[in-house]
Amino acid sequence: MAVFVQKFGGTSVGDPQRIARCAARVQQRVRDGHSVVVVVSAMGHTTDELIGLAGRVTDSPSRRELDMLMATGEQVSVALVAMALERLGVPAASLTGGQAGITTDGAFGRARVMGVDRSRLDAELAAGRVPVVCGFQGISRDGEITTLGRGGSDTTAVALAAALRVAEQGGCCEIFTDVDGVYTADPRLVPSASKLSRISYEEMLELALLGAQVMHPRAVLFGERYGVPIHVRHSQRPDEGTLICRETPEMEEVMVVGAALKPDLGRVSLRRIPNNPGVQGMLFEAVAKAGIMVDDIMQTEFGEIASISFTVDHGDLADVKIAASQVLDRVGTGELAIEIGLAKISVVGTGMKSHVGVASRMFTALGAAGIPIHNITTSEIKISCILGKEHAQRALGIAHEAFGLDRPGASVGTSVGASAAGAQPALAGAVIGGTAASATTIA
Amino acid sequence: MAVFVQKFGGTSVGDPQRIARCAARVQQRVRDGHSVVVVVSAMGHTTDELIGLAGRVTDSPSRRELDMLMATGEQVSVALVAMALERLGVPAASLTGGQAGITTDGAFGRARVMGVDRSRLDAELAAGRVPVVCGFQGISRDGEITTLGRGGSDTTAVALAAALRVAEQGGCCEIFTDVDGVYTADPRLVPSASKLSRISYEEMLELALLGAQVMHPRAVLFGERYGVPIHVRHSQRPDEGTLICRETPEMEEVMVVGAALKPDLGRVSLRRIPNNPGVQGMLFEAVAKAGIMVDDIMQTEFGEIASISFTVDHGDLADVKIAASQVLDRVGTGELAIEIGLAKISVVGTGMKSHVGVASRMFTALGAAGIPIHNITTSEIKISCILGKEHAQRALGIAHEAFGLDRPGASVGTSVGASAAGAQPALAGAVIGGTAASATTIA
Repeated sequence: MAVFVQKFGGTSVGDPQRIARCAARVQQRVRDGHSVVVVVSAMGHTTDELIGLAGRVTDSPSRRELDMLMATGEQVSVALVAMALERLGVPAASLTGGQAGITTDGAFGRARVMGVDRSRLDAELAAGRVPVVCGFQGISRDGEITTLGRGGSDTTAVALAAALRVAEQGGCCEIFTDVDGVYTADPRLVPSASKLSRISYEEMLELALLGAQVMHPRAVLFGERYGVPIHVRHSQRPDEGTLICRETPEMEEVMVVGAALKPDLGRVSLRRIPNNPGVQGMLFEAVAKAGIMVDDIMQTEFGEIASISFTVDHGDLADVKIAASQVLDRVGTGELAIEIGLAKISVVGTGMKSHVGVASRMFTALGAAGIPIHNITTSEIKISCILGKEHAQRALGIAHEAFGLDRPGASVGTSVGASAAGAQPALAGAVIGGTAASATTIA
Repeated sequence: MAVFVQKFGGTSVGDPQRIARCAARVQQRVRDGHSVVVVVSAMGHTTDELIGLAGRVTDSPSRRELDMLMATGEQVSVALVAMALERLGVPAASLTGGQAGITTDGAFGRARVMGVDRSRLDAELAAGRVPVVCGFQGISRDGEITTLGRGGSDTTAVALAAALRVAEQGGCCEIFTDVDGVYTADPRLVPSASKLSRISYEEMLELALLGAQVMHPRAVLFGERYGVPIHVRHSQRPDEGTLICRETPEMEEVMVVGAALKPDLGRVSLRRIPNNPGVQGMLFEAVAKAGIMVDDIMQTEFGEIASISFTVDHGDLADVKIAASQVLDRVGTGELAIEIGLAKISVVGTGMKSHVGVASRMFTALGAAGIPIHNITTSEIKISCILGKEHAQRALGIAHEAFGLDRPGASVGTSVGASAAGAQPALAGAVIGGTAASATTIA
């Protein structure tokens, strides 16, 4: 008898009919003699509707009150899923994040899971009930309701699976979603994309950070840290999906496992500033204080003069412009340029670290198709190109083909010795090239 | 500086505009230098919508899961009200029932408040924040979310006001609703009804039990037990409403303060049964086990033979018939009659216990109007007549006029010495007369 954590996303519990199908999936595992803990997200567009409701009350809701509001979305779902299970004769008990023992650091809106007290879960399982747990939320040590931020339900599921040590008993964390696994690229953008049967945590993490929406990066990190096997599969179909697990020797043979696209980026460049580490620190401190996530950073130096560029989500450009202008004012020299309409395509693979010629292959393929590349950044297991948004989808298909992803199993390169180093975070990526063509300064 | 508990019902927080008006009311009290604790119900029809959603998942949701589901309604409201307060510059903190320290007995769907731990409320007030508390809910000692049943938000407000000892500091519990106070009768049924400036707990309790919907009876009982002054007033208008408080000598002078109508009753009669207390016990135990609330009980005796009649809500008749039939089978004699289409009108007044001729005045007035009365029951402070539903509204108006309620201040009778006894519960009312005309047996 194994323990499975089964997580159902918002689309999977979008209406009573879908909830009934999710309940049937849980029932199947229970019938097979396994213990099951269920984690659910808010139904369909509930979270967006609640945020919209808050927007009709105030322009600037506090994070604490937004969390109190949004936590209701999952609470509705767990009650309905528990009812659906009981209707099938499967004893169940819905639990809020706090009742399920999930404690967080208390940072409203983006709380981190600090620990899981599994006593209540154990008691429910011992009593033969299926605990149905609110994803996306927990309580702080002060008893405050906190949400984990978007995609937090995946993190809840993996955290519970880690606490319950599902791997030791042959179970895993099943992420049921509206796609049937992890693909070599988004099949809506690249029709020849194929489903992967396995992928390493590192690769999945990079793909998630680079725009693949199938799994939340924090959940993958959690899975990696605690060695939780994560099975991503379709909520309404019985097929096997994709297993996210530790890297195996065979995986090293595969140079690239997937390609991803991040649309709607903007680039901010500070040119002709002093080549001085203090300026960089000042800049990124100001950007972080404005609550903005920086995508890639590129720096070029010419003696005592340097230029720093970084990409951010298009929606953050206005805030970035204010923060960066203030830094330039303090530095007293340099100029600010903002480019819009950019996108990033990336290829990812653990095998990349033991292969040569990956960057050149990508460069060559895009060049042959006449697609201008603004920047290339790399980490140990990924290569990204920043390019014009208008070329993004075609570039994704070209990269996908260049690494043989449209012919599964063909993308194996020549091994030149494995590297023991883990994946570097994207921010630490080395700059291979950089241009600033089509720069548009937002007035 | 006084402490006020302000409770806003579902209609008062039905949309963002109304929420803003509630917040402005709270702000006014805060500006005047008072401490305020806010209690809110679920928005508009939220509770009914959630029950409807559950009904699409299962025919028989468990009470535990229904409570988990319904508790979200108030949680949405408190977050939005807290946001609206913060928008006005009033620091606020929303709290679930559990966070606010409300502990219950754990009976899902109809939990009783067992205690209030005021430490969190005190901490919020000390920090200058307005606690905005979910009405209708609390947590059991096991940490389970429990609801107090319909109208429970009133109980939450009065319980918090009791715990905070608002009366000692010149504050009170303000119940904001969509009517501007307690009337001598429902103004929709009796246009000449007028607003009462004061009413005793006993009178309000009787009126609430007899069909007046302005306050929940349990909340009134709580107020009486802990001496919490309750001010019922309109949420969108500044006027003074009605103060529910301890009886004062002036109140004794008023024979009747209000008239109420309870529609849609049915009467169950067990005739020609043995005149034996054991039979009564057996009957009402069976009815209670079926979860049915009995309204009035009437018994007539003829030597060794007796008849028992009692009224129940029309919707409970089918269940009552099953329970009563089983009792007759065990007794082995007697017959069962069920009447439908009945209603009850009542007049209530603390002064009634020191006055004579109240019953006869009511009897005479209804008789002169040609309205047949099936039964009259009385307690120390109320007289009720059971009559055909078709006469109910007209009878209410006639009783209202007979006791001078359409001429406020005129309903003072002749005092014949005050009685020290408290109000008897309605069930213990003495039978003055009884007929069984128009008996209809449901097959």
